[in-house]
Amino acid sequence: MKYPDEALFNYVVEGLEKRGVTKVEVGKLAYRMQHRFFPELTVEDFGEQLPKILKKREVLNILATGFALDDLASAKKLPEPLQTIIENDLGNYGVDENLAISIAQLFGSISVTNYGFGDISKAGVVKKLDTDPETNRVNTFADDLIGSLASADMSRLAHGKPLDLSGWEHKIK
Amino acid sequence: MKYPDEALFNYVVEGLEKRGVTKVEVGKLAYRMQHRFFPELTVEDFGEQLPKILKKREVLNILATGFALDDLASAKKLPEPLQTIIENDLGNYGVDENLAISIAQLFGSISVTNYGFGDISKAGVVKKLDTDPETNRVNTFADDLIGSLASADMSRLAHGKPLDLSGWEHKIK
Amino acid sequence: MKYPDEALFNYVVEGLEKRGVTKVEVGKLAYRMQHRFFPELTVEDFGEQLPKILKKREVLNILATGFALDDLASAKKLPEPLQTIIENDLGNYGVDENLAISIAQLFGSISVTNYGFGDISKAGVVKKLDTDPETNRVNTFADDLIGSLASADMSRLAHGKPLDLSGWEHKIK
Amino acid sequence: MKYPDEALFNYVVEGLEKRGVTKVEVGKLAYRMQHRFFPELTVEDFGEQLPKILKKREVLNILATGFALDDLASAKKLPEPLQTIIENDLGNYGVDENLAISIAQLFGSISVTNYGFGDISKAGVVKKLDTDPETNRVNTFADDLIGSLASADMSRLAHGKPLDLSGWEHKIK
Repeated sequence: MKYPDEALFNYVVEGLEKRGVTKVEVGKLAYRMQHRFFPELTVEDFGEQLPKILKKREVLNILATGFALDDLASAKKLPEPLQTIIENDLGNYGVDENLAISIAQLFGSISVTNYGFGDISKAGVVKKLDTDPETNRVNTFADDLIGSLASADMSRLAHGKPLDLSGWEHKIK
Repeated sequence: MKYPDEALFNYVVEGLEKRGVTKVEVGKLAYRMQHRFFPELTVEDFGEQLPKILKKREVLNILATGFALDDLASAKKLPEPLQTIIENDLGNYGVDENLAISIAQLFGSISVTNYGFGDISKAGVVKKLDTDPETNRVNTFADDLIGSLASADMSRLAHGKPLDLSGWEHKIK
Repeated sequence: MKYPDEALFNYVVEGLEKRGVTKVEVGKLAYRMQHRFFPELTVEDFGEQLPKILKKREVLNILATGFALDDLASAKKLPEPLQTIIENDLGNYGVDENLAISIAQLFGSISVTNYGFGDISKAGVVKKLDTDPETNRVNTFADDLIGSLASADMSRLAHGKPLDLSGWEHKIK
Repeated sequence: MKYPDEALFNYVVEGLEKRGVTKVEVGKLAYRMQHRFFPELTVEDFGEQLPKILKKREVLNILATGFALDDLASAKKLPEPLQTIIENDLGNYGVDENLAISIAQLFGSISVTNYGFGDISKAGVVKKLDTDPETNRVNTFADDLIGSLASADMSRLAHGKPLDLSGWEHKIK
């Protein structure tokens, strides 16, 4: 059975949009943490990384799973006690952070460290998702996962650019 | 809000029982992989570790989340394309393995390595969960998670016994 | 060949002592981050967790490896370009963070998140190790590893206390 | 201070060569594990992935650190008890596996699982590195790290190919 890449991509992109997560918002989160180290990079530069991050199937799989769990909790469709735990974002749960860290690890240890900092010093769209009283939407997974997208973004652009091996590749036997 | 530890524990214990996962079955998986290194340890010795593993709230949180996702998939209650992916245990998903690895990591790198070996060379109750044609139950998460319990088990008993610091603890300033 | 547990423990304890890392200093780091959530816990309460963390052989193995790499760099005994990278704590290295995250993961995802926050908002003995101009000692690994001890400490005491299964253990088949 | 990318790359490439690790050898390891799933892929196809893996600075950093530790152990330059532990590849060490898993995690959870399987069912150049009696070279880190390169390789080619977003990228807001 062929993997449903396009349906998965669409599900994730719609999930991002309905939570107000755009290239600019992710770019702002990354810019906020990296501007002092990379003053030449703009919010737009960071934002433009998002599609490159969403090309990874593993990122899409994790985002889709987290969004589905949040949506099921919003609709009160989870079994107890998970319904209570996720609906109230109880601090001892940690599976939201497990999944966010799994995304960050795809981009290296610096991404994991940045994720941890961003998760605790919540800002921008992550803070809004964490605290928004206007909707009844559960964002227990979404806020952590968007934070990990921002940490992936800054790793891709700032620290983790792959080497250009064009002059060196022949040295590999 | 107090964390619902007892309800969480009961949910996980019932989830294990209805999948046929007992101390003896987990002990057999661990014994199978470690007997050649630790010939003095019995299946029962390994099985007796299971309660010690289930004392960790993080283990319970992950098991509960995976069991809930499997049960929702069995009941066809997940949004597409996750329903198709999880129901058919498609090979490119990997979130089941992310969660299983998150359990194994609590018990160290040797546990992660053993998890990987056990997951690919499926045996015992893991193999049964992976392939059982008799039920319509989805076990996409369960087989990986039980495999990680077995790897945690062997790590606890065989490789990772903590040191006895009773004569040394005073050296820590 | 028997594993040299006592020699390993002594090597790590001496490594902590010569870097000024004590129960009180680790306790202060953990207290600083967790006091607002757990106001009843004291610096001493957090400090008393350190021996429990150092009972794990995997923690000792990682600490010993990091301390040895720092000491070899201080003595200019590493091959190039590792000598330059570690001696100058270059930001793109990341192996120091890999090892610190490996410690944090033994204590759960909340520990990893707290490690990331603490690593970027350096304080206390971690800040001193990171910036101390008085010695010529390289602390590229030590500052990250001590940060991960603090995150392990807060996880153990604040979030991750294992369940007391005494009344429930019989439910596990 | 500029990161010494070229010196780092050269150090790693020389380290691979002197251990007999070539594109073909890594390709054989990956082929051995994936041939039954992807019969159309050749050893050469897998081997050609190696340069793409070595473009990641994080991979180079970890390989260089592991090779340096092995070489220092071969030259008996490590402090005790690390010298004894690494020289004899003692089974309770695990830092070699921590670093190998850190590489595998850059390529997703399926890569971590495959690493674990490959590490225990040692084959090809990994087996040779693990057991070669002809040299006095310590390969405690090298065998695990080469195993993780093979798992990265199979993930890149077989499971983890990124999506082609050319027709879809405009959907990302």
